[in-house]
Amino acid sequence: MKVGFIGIGVMGHAMAQHLLTAGHQLYVYNRTKSKTDDLVNEGAIWCETPKELANQVDYVFSMVGYPRDVEEIYFGEKGVFQAELLAKILVDFTTSTPALAKKIYTEAKKVGAASLDAPVSGGDLGAKNATLTVMVGGEEEVYEKVVPFFEIIGKTFALHGGAGKGQHTKMANQIMIAGTMTGMTEMLVYAQSAGLDLPKVIQTLGGGSAENWSMMNYGPRILKRDYSAGFFVKHFIKDLKIALDEAKAMSIDLPSTALATKLYEQLADKGYENDGTQALIKLWWDNEKKS
Amino acid sequence: MKVGFIGIGVMGHAMAQHLLTAGHQLYVYNRTKSKTDDLVNEGAIWCETPKELANQVDYVFSMVGYPRDVEEIYFGEKGVFQAELLAKILVDFTTSTPALAKKIYTEAKKVGAASLDAPVSGGDLGAKNATLTVMVGGEEEVYEKVVPFFEIIGKTFALHGGAGKGQHTKMANQIMIAGTMTGMTEMLVYAQSAGLDLPKVIQTLGGGSAENWSMMNYGPRILKRDYSAGFFVKHFIKDLKIALDEAKAMSIDLPSTALATKLYEQLADKGYENDGTQALIKLWWDNEKKS
Repeated sequence: MKVGFIGIGVMGHAMAQHLLTAGHQLYVYNRTKSKTDDLVNEGAIWCETPKELANQVDYVFSMVGYPRDVEEIYFGEKGVFQAELLAKILVDFTTSTPALAKKIYTEAKKVGAASLDAPVSGGDLGAKNATLTVMVGGEEEVYEKVVPFFEIIGKTFALHGGAGKGQHTKMANQIMIAGTMTGMTEMLVYAQSAGLDLPKVIQTLGGGSAENWSMMNYGPRILKRDYSAGFFVKHFIKDLKIALDEAKAMSIDLPSTALATKLYEQLADKGYENDGTQALIKLWWDNEKKS
Repeated sequence: MKVGFIGIGVMGHAMAQHLLTAGHQLYVYNRTKSKTDDLVNEGAIWCETPKELANQVDYVFSMVGYPRDVEEIYFGEKGVFQAELLAKILVDFTTSTPALAKKIYTEAKKVGAASLDAPVSGGDLGAKNATLTVMVGGEEEVYEKVVPFFEIIGKTFALHGGAGKGQHTKMANQIMIAGTMTGMTEMLVYAQSAGLDLPKVIQTLGGGSAENWSMMNYGPRILKRDYSAGFFVKHFIKDLKIALDEAKAMSIDLPSTALATKLYEQLADKGYENDGTQALIKLWWDNEKKS
């Protein structure tokens, strides 16, 4: 199948690689061309614009940074919607707004195409190991057609309703993670101050009702002072702000999520926006000597 | 072995039952005598006071509600320390303060006894199924002697350092859980408002990096509007306040834990202090019709 992938970043690169390895004819576009070099060496075809890419493929996949980037690659002058899209399927993996997902859906309908919003969870490792969770919004019939691709890049996937519901599910996911990340961070800060053996604490807590993925996966990274980005602080802030905007629009107050957002913004203000989300602990440990 | 159990509440009853079933001669004391009736029917021996109990056994176990209750049963007029304690071992399962754990340890030393602080995690189900996590502080030699009892009542247990370190580890545990509970609650509030299928959301999130014990275990209870106490709101508030007091004493600021404490206090103010911790969602859903 001819498939296009727009956005060859940390996540997109791994996902596109899986599609290529699975035997699909891959077309790629990225703002920074050099990041696609190795894929092109393996047989992927470089496209100068999202429009050019969309003209040549049956499926357009995208994974970019911010809603404004999604706007640009779909609705820009050289965007996907400038191409001939009849009977094509557009799948946006970017975590973006439910409103933008609906806009793409509506526009796709108009031109005889179809779309899904399909944000993912699982970070760099999930993308590399093809164990991503994919949260999908759109029509059942379209979803079924894309399932074979979800099987290539992910482990868990489900249709959560019509256009935008994939994004809403991802927001729920990020709200949950805001809780595990702030909880884990304050837990480690406390445990270290109390003079406890941190690896042992993580092990004990992991065997009981405090168990959670963030602690088991990011905890050990923090103890090694490994703050490299599986998932960028700046992207988490973007996601949480979308979640808070949506919550506001639904007239619900989410105080813990709002506080987590503030803490991550403080972290970004200190210059750590390109660290991974586990770097939150730098708000406490920034001045420590490496241990 | 002759073992005493002080505090036959939801947790204590299940734990004492396991000791009895394992073949130990069980002595029991509880503020409300009737709660020990079935254990006495099965062969346990009722004691009128903690002192009377401690005089007759080799091991004293306790599991009561608050630090003031621990004070009372150990240091009260009819307390454990009024008994002959030479070569006996005292194990307090109550989640209490590190300072009180150290006070018991010091007092025990003086009279030729030994003590461990051994707070547990896992709630009513953990106690019933003997799958509790036990976080222990005290001396290695004493810990080794008590391990056979931990094996009867729990699944995971570890020595986390000297007297008080079990309590500190439990505080770390509760700080972590404050994160998973607030995150899960706000996640469900959001997901419901966004019109998502909640069981499906829990399933999807449980397959990815948002996975956590609280969501997988309390999530389904909340969807059934089951707010019965596996772990009481009032006891969680007690624990979190100890954690915040300890944090203050160590000059560390834990804003998310402080906010979680406030939210749980609001819940208690609404009259839900005897509900389970999953009732936090009533701050949002209190006025809904049952669905």
